[in-house]
Parts: sequence; structure tokens; C-alpha cells
Amino acid sequence: MNDYQFRLVKVQGEFTWHSHPDTDEVFIVISGYLQIEFRDSVISLGPGEMTVVPKGVEHKPRAEQECEVLLVEPRGVVNTGDTGGGLTAENDIWI
Amino acid sequence: MNDYQFRLVKVQGEFTWHSHPDTDEVFIVISGYLQIEFRDSVISLGPGEMTVVPKGVEHKPRAEQECEVLLVEPRGVVNTGDTGGGLTAENDIWI
Repeated sequence: MNDYQFRLVKVQGEFTWHSHPDTDEVFIVISGYLQIEFRDSVISLGPGEMTVVPKGVEHKPRAEQECEVLLVEPRGVVNTGDTGGGLTAENDIWI
Repeated sequence: MNDYQFRLVKVQGEFTWHSHPDTDEVFIVISGYLQIEFRDSVISLGPGEMTVVPKGVEHKPRAEQECEVLLVEPRGVVNTGDTGGGLTAENDIWI
């Protein structure tokens, strides 16, 4: 919508620590359970639950079992933020 | 997030025909079933389904039974768009 993307992603295992210096990021859990680690805490989200990770805040998503998550953020945001590495996904690939 | 709001609303009955001249609008159904009428068609969304109503497109949400919907749009958008009337809600009321 407008210049924002809604991306349905699957999470299993541990993602990398990263932050997005220029944007907040919304996680809405569709199915399963998602944990998001912060440097000083961890939250767990179940189906229908959401959170906003403020811009610049380091976080590491993880899920013991595969879960489905709807990500909302501006078009073109890199999934690994300022970290890069092997988990960086190509952007704007439409399926 | 950023300058966008995620608003959880309940819909029952028929809303008013309206459009938003300056923004797209996202509907994500959390529970129940939502119909959105357009001038030439109607769609039905169930739990976990979403749609984007493009800016300027007239639409009328309705639900036979109460349903819960997550609306995503820029902060300050008036719920009845360019129509106004008795169903217009105060904005930026935090609960």
C-alpha cells in the first residue's frame, strides 16, 4: 500500500542480529509462535499478535518451529538491516 | 509504525460508501468475515485474509456478523473518507 510492502515470510531457527536505521518494522504473526530477542529482553508472539520494532533497535527473530509472519515496512528495506550476511534476501522479488 | 497506524476495529452491519483520495487502505481480517463492496464487484475476506483498497476507489465495508479487522493507513485518515456523516469517528483516540 502506498510505498509500503506487506511480506508474508516463514521463520524457523534463528535469524541474525540486526537493526533498521531508517524505519520501524511491524511483525504480525499469522501462525505459529515467534520470539524476538532484544539486547535486554525477549518477547513471544502467537497467532494474531503483533509488535512494532522501533527503528534503530537491534533485534533477532527466532522460532523453534516454523511460523508464518506478516512483515510491514517500507518498500526496499533489506531484511538483515545493517548487518548483511548469508541470510540477506533479494528484494522486490514478486511471487 | 513510522507515520502509519494499525487500528483494530469491529465491523457489523453496513458502513457508508466512501473513498480516501490521498491514500491506499489495507484491511486484514482477524476474525469473522468482512465483505467489501465496490461499485462493480464485491469481495469477501475471512480470517488471515487481506486486501488493499487503492486510493480514490469507492468502497463500502459490511459484515452480517461482527468481525474484527486490522486497518492499516497513515495517521489521521478519516474513517469515512470523503463522505463524512454519522459514522465518522474521532481520530487519534488511544485506548
